[in-house]
Amino acid sequence: MKEVYLDNSATTRPLPEVVEYMTEVLTENYGNPSSLHNKGLAAERIMKRARKAIARKLGVNPGEVYFTSGGTESNNLAIKGVASTYKNRGRHLITSKVEHASVIDTFTALEEEGYEVTYLNTDKKGLISLDELANAIRPETTLVSLIHVNNELGSINPVEKIGPLIKNINRNTFFHVDGVQSFGKILLKPADWQIDLLTISAHKIHGPKGIGALYLKKGIELKPLLHGGGQEKGLRSGTENLPGIAGFIPAVESLPDFTSTSPRYEKLDRLRDYFLNRLKETLPETVINSPEEGAPHIISLSFPGLKGEILVHSLEGEGIYVSTRSACHSRNDQKSHVLKAINLPPEYIDGTIRISLSRFNKEEEIDYTIAKLAEQIKLFF
Amino acid sequence: MKEVYLDNSATTRPLPEVVEYMTEVLTENYGNPSSLHNKGLAAERIMKRARKAIARKLGVNPGEVYFTSGGTESNNLAIKGVASTYKNRGRHLITSKVEHASVIDTFTALEEEGYEVTYLNTDKKGLISLDELANAIRPETTLVSLIHVNNELGSINPVEKIGPLIKNINRNTFFHVDGVQSFGKILLKPADWQIDLLTISAHKIHGPKGIGALYLKKGIELKPLLHGGGQEKGLRSGTENLPGIAGFIPAVESLPDFTSTSPRYEKLDRLRDYFLNRLKETLPETVINSPEEGAPHIISLSFPGLKGEILVHSLEGEGIYVSTRSACHSRNDQKSHVLKAINLPPEYIDGTIRISLSRFNKEEEIDYTIAKLAEQIKLFF
Repeated sequence: MKEVYLDNSATTRPLPEVVEYMTEVLTENYGNPSSLHNKGLAAERIMKRARKAIARKLGVNPGEVYFTSGGTESNNLAIKGVASTYKNRGRHLITSKVEHASVIDTFTALEEEGYEVTYLNTDKKGLISLDELANAIRPETTLVSLIHVNNELGSINPVEKIGPLIKNINRNTFFHVDGVQSFGKILLKPADWQIDLLTISAHKIHGPKGIGALYLKKGIELKPLLHGGGQEKGLRSGTENLPGIAGFIPAVESLPDFTSTSPRYEKLDRLRDYFLNRLKETLPETVINSPEEGAPHIISLSFPGLKGEILVHSLEGEGIYVSTRSACHSRNDQKSHVLKAINLPPEYIDGTIRISLSRFNKEEEIDYTIAKLAEQIKLFF
Repeated sequence: MKEVYLDNSATTRPLPEVVEYMTEVLTENYGNPSSLHNKGLAAERIMKRARKAIARKLGVNPGEVYFTSGGTESNNLAIKGVASTYKNRGRHLITSKVEHASVIDTFTALEEEGYEVTYLNTDKKGLISLDELANAIRPETTLVSLIHVNNELGSINPVEKIGPLIKNINRNTFFHVDGVQSFGKILLKPADWQIDLLTISAHKIHGPKGIGALYLKKGIELKPLLHGGGQEKGLRSGTENLPGIAGFIPAVESLPDFTSTSPRYEKLDRLRDYFLNRLKETLPETVINSPEEGAPHIISLSFPGLKGEILVHSLEGEGIYVSTRSACHSRNDQKSHVLKAINLPPEYIDGTIRISLSRFNKEEEIDYTIAKLAEQIKLFF
């Protein structure tokens, strides 16, 4: 087998139709969307189509979709935006200990500016306690920001319950959800679930890198991070990344329409079940960190006594691409804050790898991966 | 003639080799540059090549080049970054009245946060006075930010003199230059000219939209705007826009190497001279706002009594694309702050169009444009 890419939570391969449309737009639609002439209008038409495609998938209005340079910018914009715009209402913010770095580090930066942040604990599955959240909300709490699907574990926070819970306690508290790993994998309906702000990213759903979006519920004001030409209704200045926005369209349109009766990507679920069953047969001692009811694409495994990094490289030698944890931190030496938060013992953390599936993976790729994994594990023990 | 695109200061058409390389990278190099495995390393290799190409052209070290989502982000990062990082040294900042919106509006936002900003006047050519600048610099001035080539007029601020002048008065004052319109058009050597921070953008030099860079002189600390995974040595978190960064490479490599004996894009200079000569022959009454010694690609013209917007649309009917002014503001009704700053009378401002050339424009396109312009003007008078 030449190549088995199982690092789809880090990034995905763009769809052929994404590449094709981007190539077309780069060549033909090179106008600046803000230009008066029809090259500008043609560019703006593409942006409208992209906004519509995303809005339809989320069940929101196209006017509530704003383009950014990616998930990190959307998370920063949402969190810093709410914190600073509403600081006269209060300076207390809530998040959890298992958030993506672009959320955690943004809150840390806000603490340095004088905000008070509550970091919620999680259980062994990486899920927050609704009671702890309820107790943490105060009159001066302006924001709760939580990850929907955890990027290292696949744990799914019940954001559909959390939205109403927050609003019942304090209707002035905004709710931001980091949906980067959940969008396109499971049902996600921000408007129905009382989510006020939602982050999504194109390159996790077979779209291009460099483009993301923020859903911002109509009526909520937000101070921008970037000032300038006033693009995106003043929320995000800067000439729009038109090829990226164009590439977002086929990626979004290729996603299934989840419903309450079919809330998960079934094909991914089947692949995950197949992986886990084969794993349990072949390597029954493997520690599975991901909760059974987790997202359909993320599988965290621990091999205590082994180094995850070494396993990543030996699998790579067989053409198999996995990761130790979130890509952006995989080259620094600190232990994963997510795995620490779920109280995984240090030797388990060190021996952790993350398998993340895409709908394009095949059962024979999984067979091959399990076989090679078993070979490697035997070499070490 | 089917199409004459003369709006190259708004944005340019990506080179075929830019599109080709982006297509290749989108298809083959889809790894996350932060990933441990060789797909990550392959992606990082592309980033290194891009950094090197830009550094070579600017005469700086590759480690001093940071990627951003574009000129607007680079300007925001530079200005807010210096202002906030060094606020204990002082809260006085200097810029001019003819800056791009992403500079002016960033300073306005900083004023609201308690910074004091001096907005330098300009002469009729759009140039600041070195004396006025010298007098404005105080012990507590942490930043001077100036545009190199003005995007509406083409005026060239002598930044090579301004850097040393600033440092002579206050060596703790940082100097940021918005080089979006000058990079690739005229000589630009930040390290030689005591420029500490420099903004450039890919889509103005036939690269893709959605990618820009900031030159940051080694040793200068800067608080990031975006927190998260710590990419770009912590200065700019977020999964890197790899296709955009890849597309930057052929765009930069296709630029000439300017030297002190050949400091301007000669081909553009010849096209500009050709345009101006043909214009003076055919429409001798035209008011030319751009200084004679301005940039080789920007020509601002006024036809008092006429509406620039109407002229843009009637030329568009002939397949000719020009603008009234900077793209990002072309759809709002306020008069250009640049043209107001140079004291252009209101009826001249209303009757202004901007022609901006690319090296791919041809003399026959200019002949055609002048002929159609003359036809239109005659219709109106």
